[in-house]
Amino acid sequence: MKKVILFALLMLFLFAQSGIGANVLISEDTQTCIDCHASVHPGIVADWKKSLHAGRTPAQGLKRDRLKRRVSSKKVPETLAHNVVGCAECHTMNADKHKDSFEHNGYDIHIVVSPEDCATCHPAEVRQYGKNLMSHAHGNLQNNPVFRSLADSTNGVQSFNNMKLSYKAPDAYTNADSCLFCHGTVIDIKGTETRDTVEGEMSFPILSGWPNQGVGRINPDGSRGSCSACHTRHGFSIEMARKPHTCAECHKGPDVPAYGVYSASKHGGLYSALGEEWNFDSVPWVVGKDFSAPTCATCHISLLVTEDGEVLAERTHQMNDRIPWRIFGLIYAHPHPKSPDTTTIKNRAGLSLPTELTGEPVTEYLIGEKEQEKRQKRMQKICLSCHSQGWVDGHFARLQNTITNTNEMTLTATKILLTAWEKGFAKGLARKDSIFNEAIEKKWVEQWLFYANSTRFASAMAGADYGVFANGRWYLSKNVQEMLDWLKIRLAVTGGQKERDSQGNH
Amino acid sequence: MKKVILFALLMLFLFAQSGIGANVLISEDTQTCIDCHASVHPGIVADWKKSLHAGRTPAQGLKRDRLKRRVSSKKVPETLAHNVVGCAECHTMNADKHKDSFEHNGYDIHIVVSPEDCATCHPAEVRQYGKNLMSHAHGNLQNNPVFRSLADSTNGVQSFNNMKLSYKAPDAYTNADSCLFCHGTVIDIKGTETRDTVEGEMSFPILSGWPNQGVGRINPDGSRGSCSACHTRHGFSIEMARKPHTCAECHKGPDVPAYGVYSASKHGGLYSALGEEWNFDSVPWVVGKDFSAPTCATCHISLLVTEDGEVLAERTHQMNDRIPWRIFGLIYAHPHPKSPDTTTIKNRAGLSLPTELTGEPVTEYLIGEKEQEKRQKRMQKICLSCHSQGWVDGHFARLQNTITNTNEMTLTATKILLTAWEKGFAKGLARKDSIFNEAIEKKWVEQWLFYANSTRFASAMAGADYGVFANGRWYLSKNVQEMLDWLKIRLAVTGGQKERDSQGNH
Amino acid sequence: MKKVILFALLMLFLFAQSGIGANVLISEDTQTCIDCHASVHPGIVADWKKSLHAGRTPAQGLKRDRLKRRVSSKKVPETLAHNVVGCAECHTMNADKHKDSFEHNGYDIHIVVSPEDCATCHPAEVRQYGKNLMSHAHGNLQNNPVFRSLADSTNGVQSFNNMKLSYKAPDAYTNADSCLFCHGTVIDIKGTETRDTVEGEMSFPILSGWPNQGVGRINPDGSRGSCSACHTRHGFSIEMARKPHTCAECHKGPDVPAYGVYSASKHGGLYSALGEEWNFDSVPWVVGKDFSAPTCATCHISLLVTEDGEVLAERTHQMNDRIPWRIFGLIYAHPHPKSPDTTTIKNRAGLSLPTELTGEPVTEYLIGEKEQEKRQKRMQKICLSCHSQGWVDGHFARLQNTITNTNEMTLTATKILLTAWEKGFAKGLARKDSIFNEAIEKKWVEQWLFYANSTRFASAMAGADYGVFANGRWYLSKNVQEMLDWLKIRLAVTGGQKERDSQGNH
Repeated sequence: MKKVILFALLMLFLFAQSGIGANVLISEDTQTCIDCHASVHPGIVADWKKSLHAGRTPAQGLKRDRLKRRVSSKKVPETLAHNVVGCAECHTMNADKHKDSFEHNGYDIHIVVSPEDCATCHPAEVRQYGKNLMSHAHGNLQNNPVFRSLADSTNGVQSFNNMKLSYKAPDAYTNADSCLFCHGTVIDIKGTETRDTVEGEMSFPILSGWPNQGVGRINPDGSRGSCSACHTRHGFSIEMARKPHTCAECHKGPDVPAYGVYSASKHGGLYSALGEEWNFDSVPWVVGKDFSAPTCATCHISLLVTEDGEVLAERTHQMNDRIPWRIFGLIYAHPHPKSPDTTTIKNRAGLSLPTELTGEPVTEYLIGEKEQEKRQKRMQKICLSCHSQGWVDGHFARLQNTITNTNEMTLTATKILLTAWEKGFAKGLARKDSIFNEAIEKKWVEQWLFYANSTRFASAMAGADYGVFANGRWYLSKNVQEMLDWLKIRLAVTGGQKERDSQGNH
Repeated sequence: MKKVILFALLMLFLFAQSGIGANVLISEDTQTCIDCHASVHPGIVADWKKSLHAGRTPAQGLKRDRLKRRVSSKKVPETLAHNVVGCAECHTMNADKHKDSFEHNGYDIHIVVSPEDCATCHPAEVRQYGKNLMSHAHGNLQNNPVFRSLADSTNGVQSFNNMKLSYKAPDAYTNADSCLFCHGTVIDIKGTETRDTVEGEMSFPILSGWPNQGVGRINPDGSRGSCSACHTRHGFSIEMARKPHTCAECHKGPDVPAYGVYSASKHGGLYSALGEEWNFDSVPWVVGKDFSAPTCATCHISLLVTEDGEVLAERTHQMNDRIPWRIFGLIYAHPHPKSPDTTTIKNRAGLSLPTELTGEPVTEYLIGEKEQEKRQKRMQKICLSCHSQGWVDGHFARLQNTITNTNEMTLTATKILLTAWEKGFAKGLARKDSIFNEAIEKKWVEQWLFYANSTRFASAMAGADYGVFANGRWYLSKNVQEMLDWLKIRLAVTGGQKERDSQGNH
Repeated sequence: MKKVILFALLMLFLFAQSGIGANVLISEDTQTCIDCHASVHPGIVADWKKSLHAGRTPAQGLKRDRLKRRVSSKKVPETLAHNVVGCAECHTMNADKHKDSFEHNGYDIHIVVSPEDCATCHPAEVRQYGKNLMSHAHGNLQNNPVFRSLADSTNGVQSFNNMKLSYKAPDAYTNADSCLFCHGTVIDIKGTETRDTVEGEMSFPILSGWPNQGVGRINPDGSRGSCSACHTRHGFSIEMARKPHTCAECHKGPDVPAYGVYSASKHGGLYSALGEEWNFDSVPWVVGKDFSAPTCATCHISLLVTEDGEVLAERTHQMNDRIPWRIFGLIYAHPHPKSPDTTTIKNRAGLSLPTELTGEPVTEYLIGEKEQEKRQKRMQKICLSCHSQGWVDGHFARLQNTITNTNEMTLTATKILLTAWEKGFAKGLARKDSIFNEAIEKKWVEQWLFYANSTRFASAMAGADYGVFANGRWYLSKNVQEMLDWLKIRLAVTGGQKERDSQGNH
């Protein structure tokens, strides 16, 4: 508590000196926007006013020391450099490239600000993000027949008739509300509508796939991603992006329990108990001084330094830059793919999967051991700022072991499924059916998508509960027993049937 | 952080001026209470001392501007107006109406302060709350044979004998600890006991159904509800009532995952990351200035204004006042019932349900489209303070679609159950058995009570996880496949049996 | 908010007076450590610098009033008394007793600081903790054949061959990452390695079972436990230990949902909504003044006083000191065991279980009613500081009832399992097989380990959700129905089989 106060007084002092808020240089265009929108959408304007975008011009940003700088461009166009970054700056940027541009009170406005717009001041981040799997999250799901089939059999409405269930293809609204909420929709223009506004009748484009802020959103300018997925509109607060609740919006469910695991870890406990005293605003982010335990951003994204100014980790928006293994989402854990576009991967069976159904990695599409080691070292350098080498070695040896064992437990489930297919209890690959649409197949999916993933996350981030009874090894173990049970009762019944059939032949 | 400090200094200044705490006008009666109870129950007294009840008299409250006022009565009895609202004021109010009144040191004290007591100063809120479904939460569960049967088959202890399970009726303690914890118990007087206290032997009533603060509690004065369910004793802090943790006490489980969905939403993320800097004490509540994202109270209850003083939403304690659809608790989503007492509803099959078992709404008991539209507009006006019309339209179109699809998925599960009943694999309605007590029936319950509800909440509040893998569409889809699996294996076994039976007849 | 500021200014004033940080008396040895480690592990040093260990010498601690004192020793060795408690003080303490001691820059350093080291200043806490079940958490799991078998069948990798699943024994890494993460590993020395450090080549011991901070860790000096499980390194903040997130690291999963239940309770709601305004640093901890609702520590551990200085509860690190019933982890709830080492318990069937498989307690190993009553009274004295006697009586009557009913529901599940064993559908005890390794056995485990536990926690801590739909009575009820279903279909199939067999004999 004492620290809060000391820190607060210090901040107050710095604040008084910083001049933030003093020379607010709002462009005439932005002021025009605000004149109406402050009363039409007061929440948006209020949020923006509290933002750094509203308090500092690009030119001011460019003058800061390299480590303190938040703009990565070397130069910002003169027309933009000397005003704070307001409504007009972003929503009229690159107007000709935006299919969603429309005439609005004399301006060519677009609704969907895209990474290409942000790249004007933040090109390095946008470039890195383009190498991030997340930027391809839409296509990697929708354009990969295997994963498309998983999504469709999850989201499609089923009907029951004549003792059979049949799937409808999911509609666009459902997809946008389900997988694509996080993976990102395609935003397109489906027409124009006239609305009665406070300013009289006005015309607006109608967007399909909107609203959406999914990480792999396909924008009307053709670009991929949504910076506001994490840098929440319209405050764009780095504090928000660095706190784990932001990542949790997508990394929370049983398929990717990162937030749950973090919350159950000592790191998460420290954050929850003491985080209110930490400084989430400071750039660069100083280990020990600004915070006492990592959040998601610390390990995976942020620029970290010591109090002496030594750089522990460079900022990256390619979020597997410090991660050697891809431990979730796919059937088996495997080295990260080389390209963020995973639709081009093909295994021997012709499926767009980075491993065979029986687990062998499709190595030509995956990073090699050297690159894995490099990424692991980057991560470990961060760990070492608070943990000894022996601690870190022990931790990573366990993670490696967990990856091996969970893959083996997935293989066991897969073998049972293959037997079920073989015996004709489910349709599966050979009969060219979806491998995700029947009850036993869905049990198999949970083996890897929930339980193996959860166990690996628990191991990676030291939130043990998620590796045992909270969707961990308990379920890995129970699930294969239940799959076998399912198989055996069907064999018993069919066995009887066959026997009767043969009796009937007498 | 800077904002916290500025805000804090401002508060300090206002505090110094406000006179809160200055003229504490504690009545003689309340002082008598405190003289003992400060040492007997120090936590209660300490909490109350921090409350606004302890810092402002009703007369002072009445003098405030309409929007700032927290008392809705036009006039407060002169005997109460000029003292702060203390122990004696509430616990001796309407003494003759309270079955739980007892003589205590010369006072007629009642333990259970009821909405009727609170109505002395807050009549509008109590009146609105009477139209709130919550105020009938006890009867709507216990006096509706369908839902009573769901509760009984959940809470009753089962015994296993002769290969059969039989249910006992649940006892009162279990009910109070289970469904009625939130729905509310009946509080009655079951006797009197003498206790050895610091003041010597004293006599106290023994209450059945106590403790309880369920939203539909039946109080000893015959009134319904418990204001302290949300306005937590004895601080009665509006900050507490406005924060989502209060609602989460009852709206958290898989049957009504509102809090989980909120936590996974951008709104919830903003609250978790930045909420500590917001002002939860201010009346009226100013969008953008006091907060940057809604909590439960924002959208469903609170009086909201813009910085210019425009009213965005009037305060309401009828919590479906801004909600057109009832998306949880029942088998199918449907327009809200007209009356908060739903026990009078009867569908064509004679069940107290707002829809048929096959989903058709029982329209005469439900609000019409016009009223639905009115409620939706009230909600959307709040959305629009931070979102564009296009955003809001897109969001609500998806919700509408989700309601349709989840109802359809429930129908699919219902059809499988009807087949199971028909084939004699479960007993069901026709055999006048509970429709909730067998394994396959419980799977059917989860289809709507968990998975369809969760999917709708996820859609309504944009917490997508709960609409996919966290009890959402994944489970909706898997559950019907498992129900079919269950049916098919039983058909296969019985088929064999029938065949053998016919062979035996040769 | 106002309270935060007032409190903050007060703290600032006290801080200015307290001299914390003023006379920092760092020993020469500790300074030597810091000289390197401040740059090698900046996070550790920064954390420690913020700690009370870094701000106060044992001698200063000893001078404080009994209730304010945090050191329980009467005297601290003169060599330690007058320096703050730094690196060297702890990591060279009792060097000769530590198998993990190694020569490091002229010092005999050990990595794993043990409770025996902490006992130098905190002997009462270490003594109490030795009576705490937690201190035996490793052995009670690993050295009890019943529970060892539960752990092994959870953690062991399974293979599928010839329609059979077989279990491998779990490896040490998996165990450390799974059950033993919380229960505690055995830390041993498995060798020595030379590392290239900033100071050149240096030699370090390689520890097995490291890292670990499990509550029952077996340390290289032979002692049991890890104080840093809760008193998180290297800040050792009492605020952290008192906040529920610390306990949640191990008490969160479906097997022991204490944190979830707390979060869903009114107590947890108050903490989440208002806790940021409370004082978690103060010793002793003043009810009403420092906090308005309990955290885990309040009810189970902390020294609590009233504003008048009356002691409501003495500090204890024997965490069942205020708990009459053991409501989780075992098959049936039962009175707490007398000894924290439960491996010596034997029931009539020869199993190391405190009850028979059918629920009867093995009384000679368990505390009697008198001791139960004493512990309950200690707990209730805390409750009574904010609740009336009638409230408290009602609450505990329900808990008692819940214990009875959940035990009965476990018995029902057990009877179904016994039938399954008897009929040969699973192997079980009589066939000397693990009772945890088959599908139906795992369903039985969930009856008590998840659902009965959850229901009891919900009752004990008034977080009703966890007693109904969130792993509570709904699942207790559904699970036995599913177990019966499982049994009946197998009987039907085998019945047919037997019939055919007998037909074949004609």
